Amino acid sequence: MATQNGPISSFVPAEHQEAVSAALQSSLVDLIDLSLVAKQLHWSVVGPRFQSVHEALDEVVADARTFTDEVAERATAVGVSPDGRAKTVSADSALDEASAEFASDDKVIRVITEALAATIKRLRANIEKVGGDPVTEDLLIGISARFEQLHWMWEAKAA
Amino acid sequence: MATQNGPISSFVPAEHQEAVSAALQSSLVDLIDLSLVAKQLHWSVVGPRFQSVHEALDEVVADARTFTDEVAERATAVGVSPDGRAKTVSADSALDEASAEFASDDKVIRVITEALAATIKRLRANIEKVGGDPVTEDLLIGISARFEQLHWMWEAKAA
Amino acid sequence: MATQNGPISSFVPAEHQEAVSAALQSSLVDLIDLSLVAKQLHWSVVGPRFQSVHEALDEVVADARTFTDEVAERATAVGVSPDGRAKTVSADSALDEASAEFASDDKVIRVITEALAATIKRLRANIEKVGGDPVTEDLLIGISARFEQLHWMWEAKAA
Amino acid sequence: MATQNGPISSFVPAEHQEAVSAALQSSLVDLIDLSLVAKQLHWSVVGPRFQSVHEALDEVVADARTFTDEVAERATAVGVSPDGRAKTVSADSALDEASAEFASDDKVIRVITEALAATIKRLRANIEKVGGDPVTEDLLIGISARFEQLHWMWEAKAA
Amino acid sequence: MATQNGPISSFVPAEHQEAVSAALQSSLVDLIDLSLVAKQLHWSVVGPRFQSVHEALDEVVADARTFTDEVAERATAVGVSPDGRAKTVSADSALDEASAEFASDDKVIRVITEALAATIKRLRANIEKVGGDPVTEDLLIGISARFEQLHWMWEAKAA
Amino acid sequence: MATQNGPISSFVPAEHQEAVSAALQSSLVDLIDLSLVAKQLHWSVVGPRFQSVHEALDEVVADARTFTDEVAERATAVGVSPDGRAKTVSADSALDEASAEFASDDKVIRVITEALAATIKRLRANIEKVGGDPVTEDLLIGISARFEQLHWMWEAKAA
Amino acid sequence: MATQNGPISSFVPAEHQEAVSAALQSSLVDLIDLSLVAKQLHWSVVGPRFQSVHEALDEVVADARTFTDEVAERATAVGVSPDGRAKTVSADSALDEASAEFASDDKVIRVITEALAATIKRLRANIEKVGGDPVTEDLLIGISARFEQLHWMWEAKAA
Amino acid sequence: MATQNGPISSFVPAEHQEAVSAALQSSLVDLIDLSLVAKQLHWSVVGPRFQSVHEALDEVVADARTFTDEVAERATAVGVSPDGRAKTVSADSALDEASAEFASDDKVIRVITEALAATIKRLRANIEKVGGDPVTEDLLIGISARFEQLHWMWEAKAA
Amino acid sequence: MATQNGPISSFVPAEHQEAVSAALQSSLVDLIDLSLVAKQLHWSVVGPRFQSVHEALDEVVADARTFTDEVAERATAVGVSPDGRAKTVSADSALDEASAEFASDDKVIRVITEALAATIKRLRANIEKVGGDPVTEDLLIGISARFEQLHWMWEAKAA
Amino acid sequence: MATQNGPISSFVPAEHQEAVSAALQSSLVDLIDLSLVAKQLHWSVVGPRFQSVHEALDEVVADARTFTDEVAERATAVGVSPDGRAKTVSADSALDEASAEFASDDKVIRVITEALAATIKRLRANIEKVGGDPVTEDLLIGISARFEQLHWMWEAKAA
Amino acid sequence: MATQNGPISSFVPAEHQEAVSAALQSSLVDLIDLSLVAKQLHWSVVGPRFQSVHEALDEVVADARTFTDEVAERATAVGVSPDGRAKTVSADSALDEASAEFASDDKVIRVITEALAATIKRLRANIEKVGGDPVTEDLLIGISARFEQLHWMWEAKAA
Amino acid sequence: MATQNGPISSFVPAEHQEAVSAALQSSLVDLIDLSLVAKQLHWSVVGPRFQSVHEALDEVVADARTFTDEVAERATAVGVSPDGRAKTVSADSALDEASAEFASDDKVIRVITEALAATIKRLRANIEKVGGDPVTEDLLIGISARFEQLHWMWEAKAA
Repeated sequence: MATQNGPISSFVPAEHQEAVSAALQSSLVDLIDLSLVAKQLHWSVVGPRFQSVHEALDEVVADARTFTDEVAERATAVGVSPDGRAKTVSADSALDEASAEFASDDKVIRVITEALAATIKRLRANIEKVGGDPVTEDLLIGISARFEQLHWMWEAKAA
Repeated sequence: MATQNGPISSFVPAEHQEAVSAALQSSLVDLIDLSLVAKQLHWSVVGPRFQSVHEALDEVVADARTFTDEVAERATAVGVSPDGRAKTVSADSALDEASAEFASDDKVIRVITEALAATIKRLRANIEKVGGDPVTEDLLIGISARFEQLHWMWEAKAA
Repeated sequence: MATQNGPISSFVPAEHQEAVSAALQSSLVDLIDLSLVAKQLHWSVVGPRFQSVHEALDEVVADARTFTDEVAERATAVGVSPDGRAKTVSADSALDEASAEFASDDKVIRVITEALAATIKRLRANIEKVGGDPVTEDLLIGISARFEQLHWMWEAKAA
Repeated sequence: MATQNGPISSFVPAEHQEAVSAALQSSLVDLIDLSLVAKQLHWSVVGPRFQSVHEALDEVVADARTFTDEVAERATAVGVSPDGRAKTVSADSALDEASAEFASDDKVIRVITEALAATIKRLRANIEKVGGDPVTEDLLIGISARFEQLHWMWEAKAA
Repeated sequence: MATQNGPISSFVPAEHQEAVSAALQSSLVDLIDLSLVAKQLHWSVVGPRFQSVHEALDEVVADARTFTDEVAERATAVGVSPDGRAKTVSADSALDEASAEFASDDKVIRVITEALAATIKRLRANIEKVGGDPVTEDLLIGISARFEQLHWMWEAKAA
Repeated sequence: MATQNGPISSFVPAEHQEAVSAALQSSLVDLIDLSLVAKQLHWSVVGPRFQSVHEALDEVVADARTFTDEVAERATAVGVSPDGRAKTVSADSALDEASAEFASDDKVIRVITEALAATIKRLRANIEKVGGDPVTEDLLIGISARFEQLHWMWEAKAA
Repeated sequence: MATQNGPISSFVPAEHQEAVSAALQSSLVDLIDLSLVAKQLHWSVVGPRFQSVHEALDEVVADARTFTDEVAERATAVGVSPDGRAKTVSADSALDEASAEFASDDKVIRVITEALAATIKRLRANIEKVGGDPVTEDLLIGISARFEQLHWMWEAKAA
Repeated sequence: MATQNGPISSFVPAEHQEAVSAALQSSLVDLIDLSLVAKQLHWSVVGPRFQSVHEALDEVVADARTFTDEVAERATAVGVSPDGRAKTVSADSALDEASAEFASDDKVIRVITEALAATIKRLRANIEKVGGDPVTEDLLIGISARFEQLHWMWEAKAA
Repeated sequence: MATQNGPISSFVPAEHQEAVSAALQSSLVDLIDLSLVAKQLHWSVVGPRFQSVHEALDEVVADARTFTDEVAERATAVGVSPDGRAKTVSADSALDEASAEFASDDKVIRVITEALAATIKRLRANIEKVGGDPVTEDLLIGISARFEQLHWMWEAKAA
Repeated sequence: MATQNGPISSFVPAEHQEAVSAALQSSLVDLIDLSLVAKQLHWSVVGPRFQSVHEALDEVVADARTFTDEVAERATAVGVSPDGRAKTVSADSALDEASAEFASDDKVIRVITEALAATIKRLRANIEKVGGDPVTEDLLIGISARFEQLHWMWEAKAA
Repeated sequence: MATQNGPISSFVPAEHQEAVSAALQSSLVDLIDLSLVAKQLHWSVVGPRFQSVHEALDEVVADARTFTDEVAERATAVGVSPDGRAKTVSADSALDEASAEFASDDKVIRVITEALAATIKRLRANIEKVGGDPVTEDLLIGISARFEQLHWMWEAKAA
Repeated sequence: MATQNGPISSFVPAEHQEAVSAALQSSLVDLIDLSLVAKQLHWSVVGPRFQSVHEALDEVVADARTFTDEVAERATAVGVSPDGRAKTVSADSALDEASAEFASDDKVIRVITEALAATIKRLRANIEKVGGDPVTEDLLIGISARFEQLHWMWEAKAA
């Protein structure tokens, strides 16, 4: 039943294998970049709301890292070695490039809100493509659920 | 991509926004009432099975509270401020009104079993209405799963 | 020594039984409403101070819930089944009705500060009525102590 | 300020020293006996409610032991060596003598409920005698609070 | 709304009840057998990779046991008493019979990889049959997700 | 000093090796069956005492599983690969076959009490046969100690 | 196989039942008295070594209480309701009567060392009488092991 | 109801406000000094009882710090900013000045016992002045309870 | 090798003993004052950022207290009894005197930032003086590392 | 004393500021890349040693992430916003580019060993450049210490 | 009853005292040497199985250390001061001398397996000599049980 | 860059390799001996201060063991297999030989104080020799820091 091209076989129906693999790889790249961008802002932020923004960004980092591992290990479980290298992230991420300068808390809140929105946007598009594999579908829905919650929290800070 | 009427934007497709909002609000009201009813029975119960009924009711309270927060924060994540005030709960709950008198464990078991059934009934109806937003759908399925398990446990006590 | 009308007897001197029962019931209603109002604000708040206000409100919820259980179980311990149903809370609470719309952090801080003040006010009045039962007196003093501390913290945020 | 007859001095006003010492000693004896009686019943109980009665009795034991230590160390803190020996407990306890035979859960519930009532009765009488030392008064009020709660729980099982 | 033949009622639509019950029973049997086979190999394995294989097998046991309970309690929640007896497992399991002799780590890795594949195969078939009950569907997807991950890890060891 | 037929050597004196191996194998089979029977009853039980019986059965499962591993790993430590497969358990267990139907708590209590008695009976017989290996003897005594305690607790529920 | 006079049956061979019961009852009485004596000394001790003696006595109390429960529940497991009432302890204990006055650390060390020695002495005598029941024998050996260790530690303080 | 001069309002009746404020401020100063003195002795002590005195002093520090925060935050809760600066402590403390030289354990025990006595003395005087605010009264009683216990323990070491 | 003037000897080379002692004493005084100043501000702060400033100040207190103990115990380890009394702190601290009035969060942030800068300044000067004792040098470097990190965090809040 | 160009001031002597900043930035880039490379290998590895290599790589990730944060926050503490973006890492890392294909455990061990060596090499060179700031020097020494330990462990696997 | 030659008395019958003392001393020496040998191998091991062998050796160290303390404190409990000095271990150990050079994992597995076998061999011989003291006998049986289990695990790695 | 003679390479500059290796080996031997001597005294001590000396010695053991592992693994990290065998410890330790007889607490305090002094003496000498490798230097400084603290604590007990 399981198909196998490399060392690891897959239980995903053959006709869905490619869509699932592509969705996992693009989400992986966004998640790694989200963790790097959130860490960058964690260090760069200054301003009256420094403390709570600095801390809330580390929650984004923690979630992005956890989901990165889950998505990558779903890729291996369907027989594909994911690509999470710096140059691949730099080339393929859906997120805007961040600045590395010190930045005000207001600006940082805008940047992370947009980064979350870009991540969710591609996740929701991917969810629609992976219906042929309910396991992958379920994983991406769970990730979007958490990031939509975080997106509200960051948007609320700018309201 | 995200629609926005108030301070918080939504990633739910516009045509599903209303159904999703309504489902979350009605489930929220039932969950709050369930937590209040279960606490009321936790205090009112007397009889030979007092100890285990008293304790099992607090598990219902704990689950109802956890799910209340998840449902309400899903509402905010889709741009809607949920309404969890006492008067709204009193007006809109799908649960029967409980008594505030001391009551026998047999009666208390019947009341909480019916309260769980009413909660599950509206949850299952809501699940069918929110298919346009897999995140909300997944959340409500998870809640129904737990309450159907608890319903069995309370029904078993009356068998 | 213990008096008994229903299934549970009381060690409170008979002449103080009614005052003690009334004080516990009115404090119970305020505490439940405080937990519902604080949760409502926890969901509705937006603005620059979203994060810390959102979190601090959950501390109010947690304390209100703990004290609710202690007050209700003191009522049962003096032979009275407390009434903590939604409609009773809606009818008898000393707190002002909250709004269910998204609200700025400034406004939310004012609303929760007033809710705490209303709770403390009735608690302090009740403390003066229950001197005939040192156990109930001690319980209400402990609750007021914590809420006066929280009241300072919320007032400080508005200073 | 502190009075001293033996190796340890006391901060209790001299005119209240004797009342305080007597109240602590009599409560100590009851608490030790309560812990022994509850353990005895913990072992002797049989019947359909064995499991929950067996476990609930161990909670009584745990509370009685904790309060025993607090009362005894309050005695030392007012300069008096408390007497918690088996023969003193056997001679001075306010509790009825228990049976050491296997006993039905119904009977065990009656026995522990009466033992709690006897403990509370002497505690409440002692509270009225120790007003001259607010520290001791506060301690005894706290103990009565817990035992009145437990008394309700055991009475509820017999309702 | 809920259908009921025995002591426990079901919220699954009547036309899906039989398919759901059958899927849960067959998965239950496989999960119990998987836990027994993995334990058997845990004891029988010898060879250079003894330590890590011995430990990794206990993770399979732990997961299989957790899922066993979840699947069985889902059966009771839909009104069916599951059958997890040794003779039923022996008769109905989809897994190949294991040997009880000491075996090399290479062989053990092959056996457990095949056992996981057989479990996943029937799980995926069952997932397609239970679409009429989203709660059961969600449960089986979650189990397959974990076992597909473990299958990769065991296959990787043989690569 | 150590004897060795397969890959693992034994420190048990050669003349006691066979008796020790046989005792461990028969106890292993009973322990696995006990864990399966107790789980079966954990799911099948209904009735007024559902909650405490359901929970107490899981304690039997937990103990049976822990002892299963200890007995099986004692077998490997004396150079024998134990046999814990479903078909062996089904064929060789000393326990009566359980029913898989929903059953009243009264009946479930009788069944588990008898299962414990059958387990203890063969354990005590085995203890007398393994005196030549004090390590195995000590292990079986410890298991019997725990099950005799559990047997009392279940018998007490039926008294 | 199991003999039964009261509600609980016994797996101890009939000819050893009486010796086992007697040994458990006498050890129980000593253990309860040891816990009361050690607590008494815990409160009465004064002197340069107050701190460490006060604390080390509480370790004796904790161990004595744990063993008390194990011995009493071994009695129930062999079908006998143990007798742990204050008057029985007062009458049957092998320990010397302690004083309830404040006492120097030197004296307290002597008293507890003698109490431990008396406990061990009867334990060792009982161990020789219960060889017909290896479970009880193993339990008493384990208790003596711990008290002999504590006896050394107290004797070392006086050296 | 609440009075307010600065940014924070008070629920203490106006006629008791001054007495309550003064009592809290003087207790605060003593508590800070107690923590500094106990730390000083923690470092300065030498002698045969070094280890236990060194450790027991850190318990005094920990308690004094906890109570310091509670007293100071009670002051803010009644609308008063407490003064806990080094120069205020140095000027207003009721405790004798300690030495900063290495000191024998005997001397250190005398010094800390006197420091505790001075703290308790002013606490007990303050308790009598704050009866108009039961919350503050309860707080100071709780602190005195703990320090009277510690005073016994230190006095016992010198006996 | 170790030099010794008082009861405790030192492993610091004799020619560096005085510089090391002086550096430790001056840093000790600053650290105690920093803990007192941070606590004072913890109580005095009011304003929109009350919550996060109030909490962040307690982290400064915690670190200052931990380092205080480490520095003082390094002094004892080099044979010197440190002086941490209120009057010494009041006289020798390098920190500016704080106000004890309620103060806005803006002002509080400035005051604690300056207090940290003053502490770091003397620490860095001391580091240059204690090169003859690498143990003390390492300790002071570690303290400066943490306070420079905190200084950034407080400065960032004012940016 | 502290120099300041942007929003954050520095306590590093002005003449060492540039060297310290450069050292921190280059080490940061290597650490981020090390965490990405180790995660990549964590996913790509297959072969007989899969399990232990897979797990040991996650330890490298965890350490690299912790050190990344410490180095970046040391940069902010000296007034410099570090640059940890994907494109910077991709451009400036001292590590060789990894492959994203499935790879044998032997090859993976070689790659991670070389990545650790490259990291250590630049760390050791940086340590020699930052002697003017003992805080930064101490931080980099601590990082090298851990990576040299890990380097041994990976080299040992290839021996 | 207890015999006493030095400061500590013994409850072992006088005729068994010498055999018990000798058995404890020889087992102590082996256990200390086993902990030193296992640590030596923990550092010296290189090769493909480095990671799991390195870690498994630390489990041997941990067990050997725990048993060392139990055996030595059993010696003191029977009135004998055990001898655990390096030169005694070097002279009297039953284990072969290990090499201190780097060694392949294959060789290390052989060496530790032999060291465990030598330890078990003397333990089993000692168990036969100490039957006159059931406490010591029980202790040595428990140690042998654990080491026989470890011996199987190491032997399995070489199979 | 790294030099390599055996299976493990070193990042220590070649000209410092020998000094670093020698320093680590000699410190290792002292640390192992310190752990053995402290354990020996832990068992041998008797006298009025038995309890606190017995416990404080186990802290020395714990620290010595932790540092032993750190020093030995630093040796492997610089390419050298350390020698921690009993005979090497017995031959090369800088510590005086201890007695294995029961000894008074006074004497034990003298012996452990001297053992710590000898350990520190060689550590400080080694620190001066390993300046060419800052990682090793930092490790030895950290160890000396802790032992100088412990040395003060033991010396204080003899003052």
